[in-house]
Amino acid sequence: MKSHALQKRIGKAVRTRREALGISQEAFADQIKMHRAYYGALERGEKNLQLSTLERVCAGLGSRMAEVIGDAER
Amino acid sequence: MKSHALQKRIGKAVRTRREALGISQEAFADQIKMHRAYYGALERGEKNLQLSTLERVCAGLGSRMAEVIGDAER
Repeated sequence: MKSHALQKRIGKAVRTRREALGISQEAFADQIKMHRAYYGALERGEKNLQLSTLERVCAGLGSRMAEVIGDAER
Repeated sequence: MKSHALQKRIGKAVRTRREALGISQEAFADQIKMHRAYYGALERGEKNLQLSTLERVCAGLGSRMAEVIGDAER
């Protein structure tokens, strides 16, 4: 998978899980102490995340990282 | 999980899978076109990898990223 494609798919997987929690993008970014603009770009697949950043997002979602990446690889 | 702990566990999971292929660290680093010193540090858990880097490593291992991260989260 091209990296850009992976970023997009991970952003989409994160968005789907965040929406399922019924939390707005802004509220979720605040909750995990991430800049709102950065978080928006992450969901749009514009960021080549570091593992520690993905870990922070997944902790906020209450999801295992392997689950979120699994969504993206499917 | 603390990020540093995650890095360590991912490095270990990568090492285990690379060793299972019977390839040396140096040969594997060359194969995936990564600096040997960087790859060594990665296996020692000293790097906060970007997703694109982990993707490159997993492609070389013939493993899905979710599998490798799943090893690390177990």
